[in-house]
Amino acid sequence: MNCEIIAVGSELLTPWRQDTNSLFLTEKLNEIGVHVAFKTIVGDRQKDLVSAVRTALGRTDLVAVMGGLGPTEDDLSREAVAEALGLTIRRDGSLVAQLSARFAARRIPMTDNNLKQTEVIEGATVLPNANGTAPGLWLDTKFAGHRKLVMMVPGPPSECKPLFAEQCIPRLKEIVPPRFIAKRTLKATMIPESTADALLAPIYKTYTDVETTILAGHAEIQLNLTCAKRNLETAQSRVDELASRLEEALDAHLFSSHEETLEQIVVYYLEMKQETLAVAESCTGGLLCQRITSIAGSSRSFLGGAIVYQNELKTTFAGVPPLLIATHGAVSPQVAEALARGIRLTTGATIGVGITGIAGPGGGTEEKPVGLVYIAISDAQKTQSLECRFHGDRDRIRLWASQQALDLVRRRLM
Amino acid sequence: MNCEIIAVGSELLTPWRQDTNSLFLTEKLNEIGVHVAFKTIVGDRQKDLVSAVRTALGRTDLVAVMGGLGPTEDDLSREAVAEALGLTIRRDGSLVAQLSARFAARRIPMTDNNLKQTEVIEGATVLPNANGTAPGLWLDTKFAGHRKLVMMVPGPPSECKPLFAEQCIPRLKEIVPPRFIAKRTLKATMIPESTADALLAPIYKTYTDVETTILAGHAEIQLNLTCAKRNLETAQSRVDELASRLEEALDAHLFSSHEETLEQIVVYYLEMKQETLAVAESCTGGLLCQRITSIAGSSRSFLGGAIVYQNELKTTFAGVPPLLIATHGAVSPQVAEALARGIRLTTGATIGVGITGIAGPGGGTEEKPVGLVYIAISDAQKTQSLECRFHGDRDRIRLWASQQALDLVRRRLM
Repeated sequence: MNCEIIAVGSELLTPWRQDTNSLFLTEKLNEIGVHVAFKTIVGDRQKDLVSAVRTALGRTDLVAVMGGLGPTEDDLSREAVAEALGLTIRRDGSLVAQLSARFAARRIPMTDNNLKQTEVIEGATVLPNANGTAPGLWLDTKFAGHRKLVMMVPGPPSECKPLFAEQCIPRLKEIVPPRFIAKRTLKATMIPESTADALLAPIYKTYTDVETTILAGHAEIQLNLTCAKRNLETAQSRVDELASRLEEALDAHLFSSHEETLEQIVVYYLEMKQETLAVAESCTGGLLCQRITSIAGSSRSFLGGAIVYQNELKTTFAGVPPLLIATHGAVSPQVAEALARGIRLTTGATIGVGITGIAGPGGGTEEKPVGLVYIAISDAQKTQSLECRFHGDRDRIRLWASQQALDLVRRRLM
Repeated sequence: MNCEIIAVGSELLTPWRQDTNSLFLTEKLNEIGVHVAFKTIVGDRQKDLVSAVRTALGRTDLVAVMGGLGPTEDDLSREAVAEALGLTIRRDGSLVAQLSARFAARRIPMTDNNLKQTEVIEGATVLPNANGTAPGLWLDTKFAGHRKLVMMVPGPPSECKPLFAEQCIPRLKEIVPPRFIAKRTLKATMIPESTADALLAPIYKTYTDVETTILAGHAEIQLNLTCAKRNLETAQSRVDELASRLEEALDAHLFSSHEETLEQIVVYYLEMKQETLAVAESCTGGLLCQRITSIAGSSRSFLGGAIVYQNELKTTFAGVPPLLIATHGAVSPQVAEALARGIRLTTGATIGVGITGIAGPGGGTEEKPVGLVYIAISDAQKTQSLECRFHGDRDRIRLWASQQALDLVRRRLM
């Protein structure tokens, strides 16, 4: 079954706002085997709305209309769907009673425009909205002689998503032929997308019944595997078989098989191995600490760190000898290693990380260009550093440096 | 003039990817007075593409087709637009020569499928693509007896955006009646959206010729003012007049009148006033340092900081007396102030900031709930702390705490 999603709202046609609900709807629809063939974004003008709804009804079996169900004059989705289908609208007495009760319970006066939300298209089933005042509508109807399903859900994400997942999807499941979908997500890092694809395509292309998508971004590769079968076991075994072959090929680049982030994996490993971590950051300026501490519970194994932007602070906080900086320069493997060892000793952590580099856009030289970063890791046994050359702007260089540092910690703990 | 943007690509109909180019196109189109009435996202199927193009031609004067111009079998935008308009396609000899030269210069063998990119729709003007192999196309044509403009641009953002801005917009400007658009963006922080709107709506609603949009997010309020007139001076003076009235009403909440970020403003002020900053963060775990150091040139006034997750490090790095922590608890105004003063003295900065709080989801008590954060600022004259109660999840609490800390520094420097 094919679906068109229509997102309604003039704000979604500005340079500042974008429909994102449709990603959630797509995921839920795909899970039950419904394909999204079109998405249309349309403003709050009745004529445009009617055009969008008619076009959608003409080319898909299922139309999901998001937004335009509220109490203001701009909320025209009910009127537009009714006009497109040639149906009438009536006020629903029980909805009026419910809405009045809701306002009374909150001791808020109910203005008249709210009554708009009690209007129901002829033949529609009302979908109660537990998180807002505008209910959804479900229409099992005909257009140009063909059976069509129209779902209308409110626009705010906190209302749209639960209403769609809890009320539209179960209704659709009764209509769509049953399909069972198994999924897996693999994540790898510090490997270029093209290298990963050259390595993995010969494997996943032989699994024609599993859909494999490679996404690259944020210094990571993400592989999404999806397989639809008539029973879940078969689907799951195909996905798992392909996943284990891809995992083997990715080897140590693979860091997650179940959607965890790299920082989550690092925090898990630290806790599992009963290690503690401290960090001394120069060019990443707190990004590494911030990523680790974004994980709830990281305080059990992450002690803290120092942001040593100024050279003097490299000495104050991590005991780097001023002579070492003067001899090799602040951006050097020696200083990275001294930072890693120094922060470990100062804080009493079992693992220390030091980062120093040139994030740009200024500060680069021919010998030490923008993007040159030294990352060191130190434990009681040894201290080692890695020379990295990252490309792109300041944000990208800092992101890759923090990613490489996390990956070094992960590999040390593996 | 009305426009429809069609984004082409099956990946844009998955739960993982989204068209974002259209926000850029919308901004550029709005600037010359073209209204975006519809956006359609369609997959790489010729039938669907033709349907999308025909629908767009039927309801708008200008159609921008993004993507589907590359060398693969899935790239079908040329074929679809030609079919929708009833036009033929021919191979362009000079494009073949250019493409061969491009490959030769890079010493890459040119596979045959690349020739697809030298195909041109009858009557179309070729728009050279300096950043990729697929050129754009510009069509000034007719559909159902009406004049229609069709622009075709490649999908990758690095090719789409310059090609659209540098080649499509100048061509459109010659056709669209001249309009001059003045814009201003004001940003304010630590004020709820509803409070801001109640304060500002009575002002901006009297300027019916200036379009005012309030956006809230990331602990900030952004006001976008836009005014279109027959000459730029009139438009600018209306926008400036409204902006200055809104600025006055926002008072100290306003931190930017020209699109700067809060961290940029803080770094500007520090440099202007020749002050230096150091930071001791507990619950924000490096987020504040990371935000400040994301600004190029921040190293001139930001010395560094300490991430003092573990209590012992509050003493090691910022000299907080263990007895103070034992007496008042790590999350207390006394410890926040000791962190601010301590990090200032340890680093030799002129201003110190200390943050301690409970970011959650665990660690809260009845007396000290999740979201309780103390933020202190210290200079040679005085040390003061602020008690904050933020709501939401860990990320949101950390974001608001870093925002409040930046805002305290800004206000101290004002």
